[in-house]
Amino acid sequence: MKKEWSMIATWRMAGDAVKLGGEILENNGKCQDAVEKAIMQVEDYPFYKSVGYGGLPNEDCEVELDAAFMDGKTLSIGAIAGIKDFKNPVSIARKLSEDRFNIFLVGAGAEAYAHKNGFVRQNMLTERAKKTWEKRKQEIYEKNLSPYDGHDTVCMIAKDKEGDMAVATSTSGLFMKKRGRVGDSPVSGSGFYVDNEIGGAAATGLGEDIMKGCLSYEVVQRMKNGQSPMEAAQDAVTEFSEKLKKLRGTAGAISVIALNNTGEWGIGTNVEFTFAAVSCDKYAAVYRAIPDENNVVTIEELSQEAMEEYKRSIQEPLK
Amino acid sequence: MKKEWSMIATWRMAGDAVKLGGEILENNGKCQDAVEKAIMQVEDYPFYKSVGYGGLPNEDCEVELDAAFMDGKTLSIGAIAGIKDFKNPVSIARKLSEDRFNIFLVGAGAEAYAHKNGFVRQNMLTERAKKTWEKRKQEIYEKNLSPYDGHDTVCMIAKDKEGDMAVATSTSGLFMKKRGRVGDSPVSGSGFYVDNEIGGAAATGLGEDIMKGCLSYEVVQRMKNGQSPMEAAQDAVTEFSEKLKKLRGTAGAISVIALNNTGEWGIGTNVEFTFAAVSCDKYAAVYRAIPDENNVVTIEELSQEAMEEYKRSIQEPLK
Repeated sequence: MKKEWSMIATWRMAGDAVKLGGEILENNGKCQDAVEKAIMQVEDYPFYKSVGYGGLPNEDCEVELDAAFMDGKTLSIGAIAGIKDFKNPVSIARKLSEDRFNIFLVGAGAEAYAHKNGFVRQNMLTERAKKTWEKRKQEIYEKNLSPYDGHDTVCMIAKDKEGDMAVATSTSGLFMKKRGRVGDSPVSGSGFYVDNEIGGAAATGLGEDIMKGCLSYEVVQRMKNGQSPMEAAQDAVTEFSEKLKKLRGTAGAISVIALNNTGEWGIGTNVEFTFAAVSCDKYAAVYRAIPDENNVVTIEELSQEAMEEYKRSIQEPLK
Repeated sequence: MKKEWSMIATWRMAGDAVKLGGEILENNGKCQDAVEKAIMQVEDYPFYKSVGYGGLPNEDCEVELDAAFMDGKTLSIGAIAGIKDFKNPVSIARKLSEDRFNIFLVGAGAEAYAHKNGFVRQNMLTERAKKTWEKRKQEIYEKNLSPYDGHDTVCMIAKDKEGDMAVATSTSGLFMKKRGRVGDSPVSGSGFYVDNEIGGAAATGLGEDIMKGCLSYEVVQRMKNGQSPMEAAQDAVTEFSEKLKKLRGTAGAISVIALNNTGEWGIGTNVEFTFAAVSCDKYAAVYRAIPDENNVVTIEELSQEAMEEYKRSIQEPLK
């Protein structure tokens, strides 16, 4: 059944943001604005530690941010990677998508562009993120751990009343990453893809592995070939995880959200994964997806209490 | 008919390099070495103005280089973008592919990695490239031109006697690009992709448009679905160019090379395009592909004289 408008986003941190996105779409707003404004809200919130302000820093304690934006009507893309100290990376990515040349900018070049185009500067390292970094640094040293852990990109896909679609992503990337490390989030086809004629998909998890399978493009192609968003996303993640295990002995965490151009959503994941969705016929809700050993995923709606407990817990003082 | 070994590369500048790659493959060498060594030869030659030493600089007269490497057996990827003053970007990309985390590095972070791993420093700006930049700068100012022109990535795909496959790319990117601009060359699925179980593909042309269609991944999927490398590459380029024209009014130059895991090659292009190929049953040769108005491509082998004339012309003193 065709939905007039619809939106899906990765992780429970997007719960309030999809509510905002849904209001924009309900009030005849455009999908491009819905994904941008909703992601800005996530970027601005200091207690989400993998996106924007408060995002966890790299090995040098610098917060380096990646973001992307894609328009499903024109296939226009804008992307940035390794940018420091700008308030809303997703808006810079969207602005870049207006150009024909130089649409993917990294590092100092991305910062120069953002500066010249009037984007707001902000030191994106919070006291809390710095403390988390210091604690982790000590843990890694004391317990001789692999440093890499935590990489929750916020991704949003929206379809508006005019049938247009857009996708956007924003992340601080892998915690403790090497300086200049880029994951899948700003990489077309891996971190995101959308085409009005089919639908969109976006990924979160270990970017290094997601890029090996171009998973967002793969999911969109599966929808093109007739699969539902749920089948497309889950089959793609399952098949690719199995392939990685066969070829490499291991597969990182991979989760994909998908939305087709009739407004139907789906997800695929090889780990426990939360996401948020809203549409013309269903209030904004947060869900938990749990795959069993046969990659059959159970999806349950999170209660209001669970969400309140989550919001409380992420603000707890650090030990 | 299955070929024991085979190799294809973009542009006539790769003519001598595929000869070298072919010798490696013929002498039981590995595909990974064939693509790396062959690309290093192109990077080192000062008169190829779109790759490595002698590559044309960005708007600030800095030579910023992008490169990638992918192993078809393990799907391991390494990539760098916006790196300055290292002699062989392709080797840095290959080295990165050995890691599980931090496989795509950009800007200063990529340079720090290359430094720590002992890669050779070299000022990659030649006197000739600087003069070309100055001349172009003046031309743009005097004639009020769009600055962007010239973006010939060298891409190589090889299959060795053990049936393994690898792909690599290297480029100085769009001439006069903005600082930090990244094209498709280091972007998995757009600039390159390879899977031993199917084959590989790699792209050159306007990276901004190639990324909108994830063309290398698309071509590999078409081969997976039974198309020959020639059909897969040409159909993908033609269909996507038509789509871009319909949606955006214009499509940039796009050329793709493809090689399947039986060693058969193909190309697709929407502009006149040269490429080089070699295999166990055919000497290293350079070809010109010319698409007609119906996207039917005619391929002709370049004569020894034509190649000598080309080599002479690229060394001519600048006016």
